[in-house]
Amino acid sequence: MSASARRRTRRHRRERRSASVEVQRLPWRTVRNPHPPTRVLGEDQLEAIHEASLRVLRDIGMKVLSPKARALYARAGAKADEDTEMVRFDPEMIAQYMAKAPPSYSVKARNPAKSLDFGGNVINFGLVGGPSFVSDLDRGRRAGDYEDFRNFMKLSYSFDIIHFGGSAPLAPLDLPAPTRHLDMYYAAITLHDKVWGASLLGGYRAHDAVEMACIAHGVTRDELAAQPIVSGNINTNSPRQLDANMSDGMIELASVGQPVIVTPFTLLGAMAPTTIAGALTLQNAEALAGMVLCQIVRPGTPVAYGGFTSNVDMKSGAPAFGTPEYAKATQAGAQLARRYRVPYRASSTNASNAVDAQAAYESEMSLWASVMAHTNIVNHAAGWLEGGLTASYEKLVIDAEMCQLLAEYLEPVVVDDDTLAVDAIAEVQPGGHFFGATHTLSRYEDVFYKPIVSDWRNFETWHESGAHSAATRANAIWKQLLAEYEPPPIDPGVDEALREYVAKRKRAIDAGEVPLEQ
Amino acid sequence: MSASARRRTRRHRRERRSASVEVQRLPWRTVRNPHPPTRVLGEDQLEAIHEASLRVLRDIGMKVLSPKARALYARAGAKADEDTEMVRFDPEMIAQYMAKAPPSYSVKARNPAKSLDFGGNVINFGLVGGPSFVSDLDRGRRAGDYEDFRNFMKLSYSFDIIHFGGSAPLAPLDLPAPTRHLDMYYAAITLHDKVWGASLLGGYRAHDAVEMACIAHGVTRDELAAQPIVSGNINTNSPRQLDANMSDGMIELASVGQPVIVTPFTLLGAMAPTTIAGALTLQNAEALAGMVLCQIVRPGTPVAYGGFTSNVDMKSGAPAFGTPEYAKATQAGAQLARRYRVPYRASSTNASNAVDAQAAYESEMSLWASVMAHTNIVNHAAGWLEGGLTASYEKLVIDAEMCQLLAEYLEPVVVDDDTLAVDAIAEVQPGGHFFGATHTLSRYEDVFYKPIVSDWRNFETWHESGAHSAATRANAIWKQLLAEYEPPPIDPGVDEALREYVAKRKRAIDAGEVPLEQ
Repeated sequence: MSASARRRTRRHRRERRSASVEVQRLPWRTVRNPHPPTRVLGEDQLEAIHEASLRVLRDIGMKVLSPKARALYARAGAKADEDTEMVRFDPEMIAQYMAKAPPSYSVKARNPAKSLDFGGNVINFGLVGGPSFVSDLDRGRRAGDYEDFRNFMKLSYSFDIIHFGGSAPLAPLDLPAPTRHLDMYYAAITLHDKVWGASLLGGYRAHDAVEMACIAHGVTRDELAAQPIVSGNINTNSPRQLDANMSDGMIELASVGQPVIVTPFTLLGAMAPTTIAGALTLQNAEALAGMVLCQIVRPGTPVAYGGFTSNVDMKSGAPAFGTPEYAKATQAGAQLARRYRVPYRASSTNASNAVDAQAAYESEMSLWASVMAHTNIVNHAAGWLEGGLTASYEKLVIDAEMCQLLAEYLEPVVVDDDTLAVDAIAEVQPGGHFFGATHTLSRYEDVFYKPIVSDWRNFETWHESGAHSAATRANAIWKQLLAEYEPPPIDPGVDEALREYVAKRKRAIDAGEVPLEQ
Repeated sequence: MSASARRRTRRHRRERRSASVEVQRLPWRTVRNPHPPTRVLGEDQLEAIHEASLRVLRDIGMKVLSPKARALYARAGAKADEDTEMVRFDPEMIAQYMAKAPPSYSVKARNPAKSLDFGGNVINFGLVGGPSFVSDLDRGRRAGDYEDFRNFMKLSYSFDIIHFGGSAPLAPLDLPAPTRHLDMYYAAITLHDKVWGASLLGGYRAHDAVEMACIAHGVTRDELAAQPIVSGNINTNSPRQLDANMSDGMIELASVGQPVIVTPFTLLGAMAPTTIAGALTLQNAEALAGMVLCQIVRPGTPVAYGGFTSNVDMKSGAPAFGTPEYAKATQAGAQLARRYRVPYRASSTNASNAVDAQAAYESEMSLWASVMAHTNIVNHAAGWLEGGLTASYEKLVIDAEMCQLLAEYLEPVVVDDDTLAVDAIAEVQPGGHFFGATHTLSRYEDVFYKPIVSDWRNFETWHESGAHSAATRANAIWKQLLAEYEPPPIDPGVDEALREYVAKRKRAIDAGEVPLEQ
C-alpha cells in the first residue's frame, strides 16, 4: 500500500471510530445468587463471636455521645452512665430487640420498576459513596464539585447494573457544607430514577431526606413506614463509640420506619484487634448496638448489618482493601447477619491509587467475596478508588463491567434438548467450525455477554487503533454516556415542589433557624 | 525546607529505593479449598450432558487421525472405520475404561517438598503455557526466545505460589523446532525444582520427556509408573477430532503410567455450539475419548479432565476469556470431572492485550471460578496474556499476587479466646486505637498478608514516588527477581547426564535417525 493510501485508510478508520458506537450494557435485572452462601466460619465459631460480642456489650459497653440516644437505650433497659457516657447492654435485651427487625425489606424507587428488595439471595450493587476527591484521566485527582456530583448521578442512571445511587458518591466541596445535602438529594432524585440515600450526618440532614422523599413520591411521613423510600448508612466510631450526629441521624430515619444500615468501620490493627475473630467481635458488638437503637426507636424498622472489616498495612498504618483478610471478614459478616436474620451490607473496595490491575484485582476480591456470601447491599460497587478517598470516573465504568460479569455469571445454565445441541454437533464435520451451523445462525445476535469496556480485538488491531488500556477506553465511555444522557421524566409539579423545599430550607439554615445538631 | 535540602531529601529517598527491598512472597504451601465446590449444574442437568455426550460418542463419533490410536480403540471394542478414520464408542465401554482411572494422583518434583497431589480439594497453580510471543514493558511484544524461556523458568522458581512450571511458557523460536523441546526440558529440570511437563506434540517429544525425567530422578522407565514424574496435556482438535501427534504423545506418556490431561478446546460459536450445554456436551465427549485411550494403553494411568470452554466475540470471531460463559463452563467442567472421579484442570485466562484492569478482572473471573469449583490444576495461572498468544513478564508477577490472595483467603479463620481478643477490646478506650495495644504489639510482624506488587501507600507518597501503575511496579519486581535468582542445587553427575542426553538426541534428530512422527 502506498504511503498516501495508508494515510487515507487511517483517516477513514478514524472517522468511522468517531461516530460513537452504542455502549453495550445489560438491561435492569434483579441479581440473585442461586448458590449456597460461602461460610468461612463454622457454627461453633459463629457462636463464639456472637457470645464474645455480647460480653463486650455487657461488660465493657459502648460510649454513646448523644444524650437522646442514651436516654432511649436507658428507657429500653440498658445501663447508661451519664458521667462516662457509657452504655452497657444485657444480652437478653439485645436478643429481644433484634427479634423485632424484619428479615428483609423493600425500598421504593421513583421508577417503580427499579424498586429494590433487600434480603435472601438478592445482590444489589450500589454507587460509590463517601469520597472527598474525584479523578479522571484528563484532569487527574482533585476536590469534587457539584458538577462532578451531578455527573456521577447521571452515570449511575446510565448503567442499569448499578441498582442504587447511594447518597454521596463524592462531596461537592464547592457548595456550603451546611446546605450541601439539599442539592445532593435534589440531584439524586431528579437525575436518576433509582433508590437513593440519606446522609445521616446529623438529624437535620436525615430529616431533609425524609421530607424530600415524601415530596418526590407524594406521600406523607406517616405513610412512609409502610413503604420505605429512603435509607441511610451509619458508621460507628470504632472502637465502641457512637457519635451524636450519627445516632441522631439514625434516630430520625428510624422514627419514620426508613431502613438504617449500621456499619462499624473496624480496621484490623487500627480501630480493631489484629485478629479477624477479634475485629468481628468488635464489629458485631457495635452493629448490634446500632441496630438495637433503631428497634428501640420504632420496633420493626428495617435495619441491615454492615460489615466493613479490613486490615491496615502494619508498616505504615495505611488501610488495605480487597485483601484476604477483607474477603474473609466480609463473608463472616454475612454469616453473622444471617444469624440475626437481617439483610447484609458489604462493599467493593480497593486501595489502588490508579485505575490499574491492582484496582481491578482488589475490587474483584471484594466483589466475589461479597457476591458468594449473599451480600444484599454491595456499597461502593461503582467508582471507588484509593481506599475510598477518590471517586473515579473511569473506575465507575470498569466496576460496572465487573458487576455485570458477576450478574451474568449468576444466571443459570439452561440444559435442554435444544441447548445440548447434539444435532448441531452432528452437522459440523470433525475439525470444522460452527460459525455457519444452523444452531449458531439462529442465535447469532444475543447469545453471549457483550462487554462495556473489555477489548477482545486481536493485538494488531488493538495496537493499530492506539493500544488503549481499559482505563483509557473507560474514559471515552463515560464521556459518551454523559453526552448521550437524558434525564428520566419527572412531574413538573413535583420538581417544582422539590426546588421550593430546597430553597426554603437553605434560607432557614442560612438564617440559623435550623438547629444543626437537632 | 530549603530547595537544596529538598533536593538532598529526594536524592536520599532515591538512593534508599534503589537498594532493593525484598520482594514479599508466601512460602510454599499446599492450597486447599475448604468450602464445598460451587455447582452451576443440577444433578439432572449434569446427567443430561453426560448422556448427550455418550450419544455423540456412540452415534456420531470422533475422527482419530493416528492409525495407532485407532487400532488401540478397536482392540478395546470401539468401532473404528479405517476409511473415514471415525471411531464410535459404546457407552458401556466408556464407563468400563473410565472406571480404571484413579481419583487422584501425585507427581514427584526434583525437590520432594514440591511434589504435588492432584485431586480432592487441592488447588495447584501453574505457569503459563503455549504462547509464541512474549512481552514486557521495555521491549514490547515480540517472538519468544530461549533467553525468555529460561527467564520464565527462573521466575516460576522465584514464586512458591506457582506450584508447577508447566512445559512451555513460550516457544523459544530462536531454537530449531525439531530439537527445541530438549532445551526446554533441560531448562525446566535445572532452573527450577518443581513439577514440569512434557510436550505431547508427537511421540518422540513425549519420549524425550520420559527419558529426561528418568535421568533427573535416577529411576528406570519401569519405575516411573509407581511414582509419576512428568505429565502432559493434550488438546483435541475440536470438534470431534484427535490429531496424530497429540494421540501419539499421550500414548507414549500413558504407556509408562505418566499423567495425561485431556483438554478439548471448545470455543462456543467456533469449535463448539453457541450454547454452554452444547459446548459442554462436545467437551465431555472429547475428554472421555481421550481419557479412555489412556486407560486402554495402560489401565490405571493417571488422567485429568481438562475444561477449556469459552466463547468467541460473535462479531469478530475473536476468542474471549474470563467471561461469564467461561466461568460457568469452567465450574460445570469440574462437576463433570467429579462425576467421573478424576482430577480437573482449568485455567486462568484473559483476552486483554495489555497488563491492565481488563487483564486483571478477566483473570479474576477465571481464577475465582476455578478455585471455587475445586480445580486441581489451574493452568496458565501466571503470565497469560492476550488470549494465550503472549507470555507477559509483568502479568506473571501480578498473577502471582492474585493466586497468593486466593491462597491466603482459603486459609481458615482461627477463632479462640486469644483471637476473639475481648481483653484487647477492653484495653482500648472508645474512639481510641489498637496500634499500641498489647494484643497488637505481640502480633506486629507477620499478622497480615504482605503483597508482592500492591501499593497501599497514600496518594501523595505514591504520586511523589512516580505514580507507577501495578504493571510498572511488576516490571521492577521481575527484574529484581531475575537479578537475585540463584538456581536450585543439582547433582553435577545428573546435570552432566542430562546435557549428554540432550546432545546425543540433537545429533540423532539432526541426522534424521529419529522418526519425528514415531
